Parts: sequence; structure tokens; C-alpha cells
Amino acid sequence: MDIVNVGVIGLGRLGMAHTEKLVTIISDVNVKAVCALDIEQLDYAAKTFSVDTYTDYKKMIDQSGIDAVIIVSPTGFHPEMTRYALEAGKHVFCEKPLGLELDEVKEMAESIKEHDDLVFQLGFMRRFDQSYLRAKEIIDNKGIGEVIYIRAYGIDPISGLESFTKFATDNDSGGIFVDMCIHDIDLIRWYTQMEPTEVWSIGNNIAAPQLKEINEFETGVATLKFENNMIATLIGGRHAAHGNQVEMEIMGSNGWIRIAQEPKKDFLTLFTHNGIENNCLQSFAERFEQAFRDELNDFIQNVKNNEPSSISVDDGVRALLIAKACKESAEQNRLIKIN
Amino acid sequence: MDIVNVGVIGLGRLGMAHTEKLVTIISDVNVKAVCALDIEQLDYAAKTFSVDTYTDYKKMIDQSGIDAVIIVSPTGFHPEMTRYALEAGKHVFCEKPLGLELDEVKEMAESIKEHDDLVFQLGFMRRFDQSYLRAKEIIDNKGIGEVIYIRAYGIDPISGLESFTKFATDNDSGGIFVDMCIHDIDLIRWYTQMEPTEVWSIGNNIAAPQLKEINEFETGVATLKFENNMIATLIGGRHAAHGNQVEMEIMGSNGWIRIAQEPKKDFLTLFTHNGIENNCLQSFAERFEQAFRDELNDFIQNVKNNEPSSISVDDGVRALLIAKACKESAEQNRLIKIN
Amino acid sequence: MDIVNVGVIGLGRLGMAHTEKLVTIISDVNVKAVCALDIEQLDYAAKTFSVDTYTDYKKMIDQSGIDAVIIVSPTGFHPEMTRYALEAGKHVFCEKPLGLELDEVKEMAESIKEHDDLVFQLGFMRRFDQSYLRAKEIIDNKGIGEVIYIRAYGIDPISGLESFTKFATDNDSGGIFVDMCIHDIDLIRWYTQMEPTEVWSIGNNIAAPQLKEINEFETGVATLKFENNMIATLIGGRHAAHGNQVEMEIMGSNGWIRIAQEPKKDFLTLFTHNGIENNCLQSFAERFEQAFRDELNDFIQNVKNNEPSSISVDDGVRALLIAKACKESAEQNRLIKIN
Amino acid sequence: MDIVNVGVIGLGRLGMAHTEKLVTIISDVNVKAVCALDIEQLDYAAKTFSVDTYTDYKKMIDQSGIDAVIIVSPTGFHPEMTRYALEAGKHVFCEKPLGLELDEVKEMAESIKEHDDLVFQLGFMRRFDQSYLRAKEIIDNKGIGEVIYIRAYGIDPISGLESFTKFATDNDSGGIFVDMCIHDIDLIRWYTQMEPTEVWSIGNNIAAPQLKEINEFETGVATLKFENNMIATLIGGRHAAHGNQVEMEIMGSNGWIRIAQEPKKDFLTLFTHNGIENNCLQSFAERFEQAFRDELNDFIQNVKNNEPSSISVDDGVRALLIAKACKESAEQNRLIKIN
Repeated sequence: MDIVNVGVIGLGRLGMAHTEKLVTIISDVNVKAVCALDIEQLDYAAKTFSVDTYTDYKKMIDQSGIDAVIIVSPTGFHPEMTRYALEAGKHVFCEKPLGLELDEVKEMAESIKEHDDLVFQLGFMRRFDQSYLRAKEIIDNKGIGEVIYIRAYGIDPISGLESFTKFATDNDSGGIFVDMCIHDIDLIRWYTQMEPTEVWSIGNNIAAPQLKEINEFETGVATLKFENNMIATLIGGRHAAHGNQVEMEIMGSNGWIRIAQEPKKDFLTLFTHNGIENNCLQSFAERFEQAFRDELNDFIQNVKNNEPSSISVDDGVRALLIAKACKESAEQNRLIKIN
Repeated sequence: MDIVNVGVIGLGRLGMAHTEKLVTIISDVNVKAVCALDIEQLDYAAKTFSVDTYTDYKKMIDQSGIDAVIIVSPTGFHPEMTRYALEAGKHVFCEKPLGLELDEVKEMAESIKEHDDLVFQLGFMRRFDQSYLRAKEIIDNKGIGEVIYIRAYGIDPISGLESFTKFATDNDSGGIFVDMCIHDIDLIRWYTQMEPTEVWSIGNNIAAPQLKEINEFETGVATLKFENNMIATLIGGRHAAHGNQVEMEIMGSNGWIRIAQEPKKDFLTLFTHNGIENNCLQSFAERFEQAFRDELNDFIQNVKNNEPSSISVDDGVRALLIAKACKESAEQNRLIKIN
Repeated sequence: MDIVNVGVIGLGRLGMAHTEKLVTIISDVNVKAVCALDIEQLDYAAKTFSVDTYTDYKKMIDQSGIDAVIIVSPTGFHPEMTRYALEAGKHVFCEKPLGLELDEVKEMAESIKEHDDLVFQLGFMRRFDQSYLRAKEIIDNKGIGEVIYIRAYGIDPISGLESFTKFATDNDSGGIFVDMCIHDIDLIRWYTQMEPTEVWSIGNNIAAPQLKEINEFETGVATLKFENNMIATLIGGRHAAHGNQVEMEIMGSNGWIRIAQEPKKDFLTLFTHNGIENNCLQSFAERFEQAFRDELNDFIQNVKNNEPSSISVDDGVRALLIAKACKESAEQNRLIKIN
Repeated sequence: MDIVNVGVIGLGRLGMAHTEKLVTIISDVNVKAVCALDIEQLDYAAKTFSVDTYTDYKKMIDQSGIDAVIIVSPTGFHPEMTRYALEAGKHVFCEKPLGLELDEVKEMAESIKEHDDLVFQLGFMRRFDQSYLRAKEIIDNKGIGEVIYIRAYGIDPISGLESFTKFATDNDSGGIFVDMCIHDIDLIRWYTQMEPTEVWSIGNNIAAPQLKEINEFETGVATLKFENNMIATLIGGRHAAHGNQVEMEIMGSNGWIRIAQEPKKDFLTLFTHNGIENNCLQSFAERFEQAFRDELNDFIQNVKNNEPSSISVDDGVRALLIAKACKESAEQNRLIKIN
């Protein structure tokens, strides 16, 4: 295959960004079609990217002549869309998380394994970020000894709260652990090759009481115990005044790694009456520009070269199972064992 | 009282540092006597500070003509020494924590309340540190809104592990939560005026298996749930390669505070083939020089002016009770309710 | 014009990078041809980018059917190539500096003004960098008051010295001030709208005595006095152990701006026995990825929309004149007046 | 000598701070007397430190029974006071700079050399600062190779401008180079063991036009050329919005050192809608607390042990000569040779 023809399902902020990258930066790919329910989004995409538009994803899969599907729809639709696409013989790139319900996701995993001639890739894009990649290398080379403790923050800026509230009123976001912390769950498993055995979680809405009405926690904290008593704390939130704080700290027996302890936006530092000031990144899209690009590129090359993705569907199932255990623990306020 | 005559019990690293500060920097005080079991320590102190020396603390209290006692002995001795001193009519400054057993500590508290004509002050010195003080002011002024989550690190450098192991073999340190995290427990209560209701803790010895033999955890992580679902994570440890990391982060609904996210030792930055490098602080004594000084000064002025300490014995009892619950949770691997 | 057809002259590191960006990222452009003397470079470009190749730039301009030329050849060739292209009716993007000799450059400027129907754009790409752009905005809004002093570093890493030495043996680099500091000269003029009136410069080869043989200074420092006694210090060099340090500090009467005081490579911070470490950027290409992209995009859009570039040829002439005065001062060790 | 009896001349901000340190922190010293013209200052000192007070420094030297004098008067008085004290057989600690006029200072130096049985120490306190000391060690051990370039900032906060203006209206401060940059001149000579041969300086009053009336430059920039073409830039100023910026950068052929690139006040970092903020140090007294203490301690021990100071009077003469050349260059706008 010289050029991979793709169709994108979902044109929200991330779907639009993926489409733009595929059209303008990624090689060996041709975006033939996009699918969305929102007519304005479709019009914008048609005009900007010169692509065919669909409101019915099945039609797009069946009729647009594509080789692969990029699924960026709300999470609840991931399983059925993935299965439909695979059955139609299309390669699939699917945003994280795999889905919202474990049963559905396990069926989805079976379908993926049945179609092992097709590439399936899950959007754990942080694995492609230069800083996280360098951490992986350091850890694998025992550069910080054995891992003792990991702390992970996934906290969105206050400025994004309104649009999230709207989204989560109309859709099931999965909740703070499934929606936000799942990236870190994947990274911890990737870095340590270990599984958590028990979790206790707590959620609160001190900063955003309105989220209680839609069954969301603004802040969620999960404490995970691993096989060898290694420990991890996940902090998910939607209320950082300064910006988008996606931070990870890995404490080893012989050194620590911190990634993004301060999400500085650019190279400018201001010295004023307020002291020393640095602007911060406001969106994950800005923070992970390079990772999103390399991830999409990796998928297109995998399809082109008929190679399996390095991120397996089992990684996705496992991460969801852990995230759901975090959620359950917070809802029921009890220690949960993870099998 | 113009000059407060004091005696110091305990001449380990901290006892010696306190004595030196009292002799050289603190005003309105005269160190008349010191007490220790180690003859070398006593000789050094006698020569350096021109003080009388005792091996029996009761004799020192009864015979040396002092007004106040500074107790820097191993924690297990704090209750009996405090009670003996109070009954002899002496003001007492006592290092944290109050003691190791709750029963003893409660009796100690009763004794302190009976002698409310005497000053009793507990060594929660971080309350005197300029950075922690500024945080208190910001929080009280709602500078970061409502507190959502607090993370606290108390992690000693690897370089101190050998001497700690020796100490903890001969003495009961109280364990990682009672010995290290108790400072942060006090600060969290001070900042938020709230009490935790539940805790789950995990300990491990991945970095220092030898600590298992003396019933110590090298790393301990406690997750605390508070009345209003505010959450705190305490991380205590003894294995930081780079230095002494005593860090606290307070996430509010409208801003965050971080104290000491990087324990830089001085103002020097090195640019070399390794990139950019900063040396780190290696000891809490170095980090908290100013706090230790202001704390001792505060005690001497309290005695001189016959004013009660701002840190009550109940703060000490409550912090110990919480630290013990953390310990129990880690030992029994279960959620513990705190009353 | 829907698609701008371009040819690139020069396929060194920067020429190759420009070509790649034009092929993969920049919209509305088609790279039809490239020109170089090195056959390996031409082969690589032909294979990678599917472009026609030339060894004679005049032939490429005359025969390849392009609308615009991107000149990335050694500086000495800029004037004649620009003039030839303009006379052939082609738009020109030319790397900084305009040229090496003021006479040639003035003739070049005349030619550019005669062909004011064609777009001419000079590669002062830092004007497109997000941090420098934000500084411009702050300065224009009087966010730091009046400018008092500016310090500018343009210092390459040690790792690049060998390849520079080879290049400067075969070509006239223009010297440290013309080659390196010219960016900062342009930025200072852009930020302050002021002209220097006098300069004193000093050069040395303490770190790289071998550069003396090819009449280069490894380090050059120029002190510039401006109309209103505003002052600037330019530091150019080729011997930073840690990486590529392109830094600027602008002191205003009511605040300061620093850009890139530490050229951190990514978001990863390492805590080890060495203290706290950050890796640094090693190349200007890495540092200015975004600026190079936006600059090329700006040129293509200018051509497409038939709009003049915001960077005038006079900016280029003026910057060269100042850089040459810096050079002359260092060579003759005397104060030089600038008209 | 067991206890060194001292008298302090001058009770401005620094004189008072020195007195307080001598009374409260420094060992082996007894402050017997202080001398000032301001009655309020004298009253305050008498009450706070229990010392005898004088308005005539000669009387204090002759009658108060002191062994040593601490001279913290305006610079113009340093030479005569030093000579009077030495002739009266007193050891002398004298604040920098030695004086304002080279002739006077050379006579002063002769007098000091004639009285080589008495300790004379000059207040170049930065040599005692931990960060500058560590830099000295690194440089001496060739940790950054050969020194290529040094940049030194001595810039006071805006908040100090009013009191400086008042002071400099009543007294001759010596000007920005003699008053502020002389510390850095000393440090550069100390680090490199080299002498400057030529200087060009520029001054301006863009930020504080009122200083022109009292013949002061608000900002002064001096560029120094050294024997081996090593280069230094000195920037003195009185108008930093954020705080007290005393910074030094030493570029070596194999690494760089930066001291105090950001004068952070404490360990607290604030994350708010403004981004990331750090408070800054506002006074040199706060910044150099440790250096001032160690310097005074060093002097008292030198007197006690009858040992010469490590900072020679010739260091002071040389630094003044260089600072005066900087001043002359700025006033006459010409290159000045330094012999």
C-alpha cells in the first residue's frame, strides 16, 4: 500500500486536530472522508480539507473507499464502531479509552484478535511523547534503580470546565478515572510491567459542586498497591487555575524522574512587581502536539507496512479494568481488590 | 524573667544544633546544663559551650538551677521527661512527636494541662518556616480558594540511611509515619482546620530491604480522607538520591501552592555536558535553619513573657493519633476509620 | 495563484530542513526543484522529496517552471542569486544575512526595490518564534516600560564546532557577528525602533585557538550604544558545553523579559546523586522548529496573496551594516561610529 | 585576646545590621561603642544593644577602650577614619569601596602597610557567600575549563530608589560603577587572577531621569577587555521591578556557572491565573545574610588570632582604579586604557 486512505469519525476538538494533522503533516495518508452528526463541523471539514462527508459512520465505512478508520467519537461508541469497521475489513485507530463498559470492551477485544490481519491501535499517545519516551529508556536501563512510588497528575484547566460540563451532560465521559487517569494507568503498567492488586479512591466536588448533578467528580484521587508493594497515586482533576498540568513523578531506589513539573508554555520569563512569572500551557493538544503527530504517523506506517501496533488491545482492557476499579472504590468508599 | 536559664536533654545531631543556636544566636537565654548518656557528646558540649553536664536528667532538672528544659531525647522518653520537668516547675520545649504510645501521650497531655502556668511547646518547627508561613497566610486569605487536595513529601537522602538504620536498631523511631509524616499531618490540620476521617496506607522496602528486619518501612504512603472529602497524600521515605525532599503541594479551587518542589542548595547553577545542574540540600537541619532558630526564639520569649505557645499539646496528640492510624493501616492492610 | 511552485538552492542542514518542511507541512506549495553542488545531497533530495535536481541555479530558475526561489546557499552567493531570480521574475526567500559585503548588498537592495511587484523575504525567523513574538507584544504595550538595556546570546554547542570549522575553512562565514549576532541585531531594532550610534567589540579564541587560523573569533562581544543611551550587549560564541544557548534579556524601566534563560530540551527533570538535572537543546533547528515553519508559511502566503513581507530589505541592510561595524571594531580594537 | 572589643562607625541600614550581627551571632566579640551623627540611630542602638554612643569617631577610637573599628560610614570618610584608627593602634574592618579618590586611597594603602601588625579587612563580602565560594572552587579546579567571558549584574530594586536618591543627594555615592560594580570587579579578579587592560562604559537615566541632576547614572554598563582577550560585562542599575538582582555568569571553555539567575525569595511557588510565580529577594542584606555573618566572623577571628585578612588592601585599590576607569569612560564616552 502506497497511500493509506482513511476516514475520521468524530469532529470534536480532537477529531478536528487529528484530521488536520493527517491532511497537512502526516505522510503516506489521504483523508477521503469524515463522519459527524454536527452539520457545521462537517461543512467546515469539507471546505478546509476537501473531504467527503457522512453523518452515518456505517455508510462512510462501506462506501467511501477507505482502508482505515480513525475513531474519535464519544467513548461509548468505540466498541461498536471498532467492530463494524473490522468486520468491514478496515484497519482501526481508536481513541482512548476502549469503551465505558468492561463487557463490551471484552467483546471488542475478541473481535480485534479475530481480525489480527488488520491493524488495531489504541490512542495512548503519551507513549509517543519525547519526555515520557526518555523516561521509559531511563527506567529500562535501571537509571533510577527499582521503582518505589509513582505519582501522576492529569488535571485540566478551569478554563475548560464549562465545555466539559456541557459535554458530560450530553455524554457519559466515563468519569474522572476512566476519562483522565487512564493515560497514567497505561504509563505505569508500561514503565513497571506490574499490575495493581488493590485500590482505594476518593472523589470530591469542592471546586465544582455543579458536577455532582451529572455524577462526575471534579477531583479524584486513587491510591494503588502493586504486586511488590510498589505504590502509585493518581490525581485527576478539572480545576487548575494556571493551566493544563499533566505531570508524572517516578521515584526509584536510585534517582527520581519528574515529567512536566511546571507546564511552561514557552521560553519567556517575565520579571515584574509580582516576582518571576511563567505562562503555562492551557490545553493537552498544545502539550502533546508532538506525541499526537508521532502516534498518527506510527499508525499510518503500521497499516502501510502491515505491522501490529506496539500498544495491544489487552493494554486497553487492563487499563479500563483498573480505571473502573478506581471509580467503584470512590463511589462505594471501600478498598477494591483488582484481579 | 530577664534571662531564661535552660537545660538541654539529648545531644544527638538535633540536640547539639539546638544547643548551639541557644548559645550563639538566641537572645535572653543562658544554657546552664546539658544531659546525655554519651560521654564524648558531653565532653564536646562542656568544652564548646561552657555548660554543666549531667548523665541523669532528673538530677539536671532538680539541681542545675534552670527555668526550662529542652527535650531532644529519643521519642519514647518524651512523656516521662516532660512530666518530671513540669512537676519540678520547669517550662518544657519538647521535640516532635509527643511520644510513641497514645496512652502515655494522653497522660502527658493531662499533666501539661494541669500545669498551665508553665509553657509547654511542641517542636512542630515547620510552622515557623518562612515558606510554610507564607502559605498559611495565602490560604487564610483565600488566595487559592478552598483546599481540594494536599500532597506532602518527607523524604530523607540515601546518605542518611546508614545512620538512621543504626538509630532505629537501638531505638523505636515510631516508624515512617510517626517519625517523618507527623510534621505534614500537623501542617495539614493547621492549614485546613479539618480532621481526617479515614486512612489507607501502604509501606514498602523495595529500596532498603534491610529495614524489614527492624520493622521499618523505607517508604510509606498514606491516603487520608477528610470531613468534606478533601484528600491528602503523605509520602514518607528515606531513599532520595539527590537530597532532602520536604515538599508540600496545596491544590485549591483557585490556585495551587508548592513549597520546595526542588530543594536547591544554593544560588549556583552549572551548565555542563550533562545539561543544567543544581545541587540539593542534604539535611533537614540545613533546610530548616531559619525555622529552628525562630522556633527556639519563640519558646524563650514565651517563657520570658509567660505566654502560652501557639502550638497546643492537643495538636500533638491529634497528629500522633493520625500518624498511628496511618501506621496501623499499613501494617494491617485495611481502611482505618479515625475518630 | 493556488499553489506556489518553488525551487530550493542549497541543501546543507538548513536547506534540507526547509525543503522537508515545504514538502510535508506547509500548505499551498509544491517543491518542484532543488539545486546543490553536492551530488549525494541531490540524490537524497530527489529520492526523498520527488523533486527535479540541478547543479546550476540559473538553469533551475530558468527551466524548472517555478514561481519562487528559496535561497539557502552560503551567504556570499545571496546577492547574485537574488538578483538573478528577481530579474527572471521569481519571488525570493533569502536566508540571513543578505550578504557579506555592504556594496553588493546595497545593489541587491536596489534590485529588490525595482522589483517591488515580487515578494522578497529575508530569513529573520526569530521574529516568528512564539516567545520572541510575545516579547514584542509586551514591549509594544509598554508592559515593561521603556527599554534600558538588552543582552543577547547566540552561542552554539561545542558539538557543532567541528562541522563549523570545516564549513568556515571552505566558505566565508562572515565571522561571529555577521553570522550569529545578526539575528539579535534585527530583534533589537524591531523591539526598540532605535538605531545604534557607536560600538566597541572584542573577540577571543581562548576556547578554540584553531579558529584563529581561519580568521574567526570563537567568542565575540559587542557593546552597542543607542540614540537615547539605551545599551545592548551581543555575545556570540561557538563553545557552550551544555547546548544551544540563544537567549535574550530585555530590561525595561518597569520589568524585564528573559527568553530562554535555560534551553531545556523537554519536560523531563532528573533527580540523582548529581542533584537536579535538565537536558538542553542541541541545535537551533530544534529550538526554532515552530519559527522556521511559520516563517516559510508566511512567505508562501505572501507570494500567494501578493503581499509584501513584513521584514524589509532595509532591515537586512541595516543589520548587516551594524554587524560589520561590530566586526571592524573587534579587528581594529577601537570605538566605531555607526551612521 | 579572648574577646575582641569593637566600635562601629556609621549606623545606616548596613551599620545597624553589622552591629546586630556582632551583638547576637558572632562569637568572641563585644560591641562596646557605636558612633553616628544621627541621634535617633544612636538612641536606638544604645537601647537595643547596650552600647556606649559617640558622635565623634575620634573620641570613640581614643576613649572607648576598643581593640577594633568597624567602618560603615559613607565611602568618602573611609580613608581618614581608617588612618586615624590604625594610628591609634586599632584593627580596622572597612566597608567597600576603600574610598572615592585614588590619591587618598593610595595614601590609605600606605598607612595600612606601615601598620602591618594590625588587621585591615575590606568588606568584599561576596567572597564569603556560599554560591560564590563554590564557583571559586569549581573555577580553580578547572571544572569549567578556561574562563572566556563573565557577565555581572548588580541591580537594586525600584523600591530602594527613593532612599538611594536621598542618600546620593547628601553624599557622594561614587557613582554606579564605584558603588555597585566594585564587588563584581573584585570577584572577577579573584576568579581569574587577571587584570583588565581597557574599558568602554555607557550610562543612562532612561528609567530615572531625576538621577541626572545629582550626577548619577541609573544604569551603567562597562565592557572590560583583559590581558588574554578574556571579556567581562558589568551591568549596574537601580531599577529592577522584581527585586534585588545580583547575578554572575562565568562562561568557561568547558562549562558555565550562573549564580542567582533568579533571586527567589523562598521555597514557595504559586500557580495561579497568572501562571507560575515566585517571589524575589528585595534587599542585598537578605540575599547576603550568610556572607555578611561569615565575613564579620572572619574579621573577628583574624583579630583574635593575629592573622592577616585574605582580602588585601591592594585588592581594594585595584578594584577602585578599575571602577574609576569605568566611570571615566562613561563620562567622557571614550575607550580608556587601564594600567
